[in-house]
Amino acid sequence: MLPLKHQSDPRLDLSFERVVAVRQELVWKAWTSPEHLKPWFTPVPWTTVDCEIDLRPGGVFRTVMRSPQGQEFTNIGCYLEIVKHEKLVWTNALRPGYRPAPPAAGDAAACDTFLFTAILLLERHQKGTKYTALVVHKDEAGRKQHEEMGFQEGWGKALDQLVAYAKAL
Amino acid sequence: MLPLKHQSDPRLDLSFERVVAVRQELVWKAWTSPEHLKPWFTPVPWTTVDCEIDLRPGGVFRTVMRSPQGQEFTNIGCYLEIVKHEKLVWTNALRPGYRPAPPAAGDAAACDTFLFTAILLLERHQKGTKYTALVVHKDEAGRKQHEEMGFQEGWGKALDQLVAYAKAL
Repeated sequence: MLPLKHQSDPRLDLSFERVVAVRQELVWKAWTSPEHLKPWFTPVPWTTVDCEIDLRPGGVFRTVMRSPQGQEFTNIGCYLEIVKHEKLVWTNALRPGYRPAPPAAGDAAACDTFLFTAILLLERHQKGTKYTALVVHKDEAGRKQHEEMGFQEGWGKALDQLVAYAKAL
Repeated sequence: MLPLKHQSDPRLDLSFERVVAVRQELVWKAWTSPEHLKPWFTPVPWTTVDCEIDLRPGGVFRTVMRSPQGQEFTNIGCYLEIVKHEKLVWTNALRPGYRPAPPAAGDAAACDTFLFTAILLLERHQKGTKYTALVVHKDEAGRKQHEEMGFQEGWGKALDQLVAYAKAL
């Protein structure tokens, strides 16, 4: 059973790619344990104040982000694929146990008002790790909304924080 | 990484369980190849006129059912977990490649107006195979709608057809 080759559709998807000078194993660790995820996951001045990870297909990936004003936003996702050190897939279209997610609360400020699946790929690289994220949406509006929320900048800043955190480990 | 233990919530989920006098490997075959799925999948007088299976996480599970009057209904799902001979999980909340499914067309007669994930478990049994299906919905309305569409009767009739088909193989 060969793994699926992910085909990106630029109308519907967003992607982020960078080579970082951090070993693949450390990037993996930063993504897969609450202790090592909270310090870098949300671009400052926002913070990640809680995180729950059940690292298996169907398991929960929950984070709580706090704004500088103290408002909290919870994101609940479900892991789909886990290939240690190489591939992590999760979606907010399903809740843990693969249950289809209920409709969003209708609060435009909430982080769960649109659905996506994120596919994170890590590859060994001579300079460290090639880090690729592909985020797929149900429609063009979802892609645009995510783009306007600052997808590129957000993933970039978070990765800068991950690199700084991993180097200090 | 232990597999997830699926917890059923009777408010939101439907389940179907039966022991059948068919070997586990044959039940698996009947579920995982278009050739062996089409003959039994839809209770007569409906028929399954097309089927596409890409048996890997993220792969497509598409079926086309035809009513006695000749109307066709397409169901598109995405496989989530595949444990040969033992466990098959798919959802219509995601399209192939894990893309969140677009909103339903609004046609109440269409088969894709509600979202669910199906978890099929096969276990060796002294009489053949213990066959368990757990179908999880996003809310109580989804569970009720599926129930009223004849979930128990539909899965039962389809399984009768599967048994008859497998015995003639």
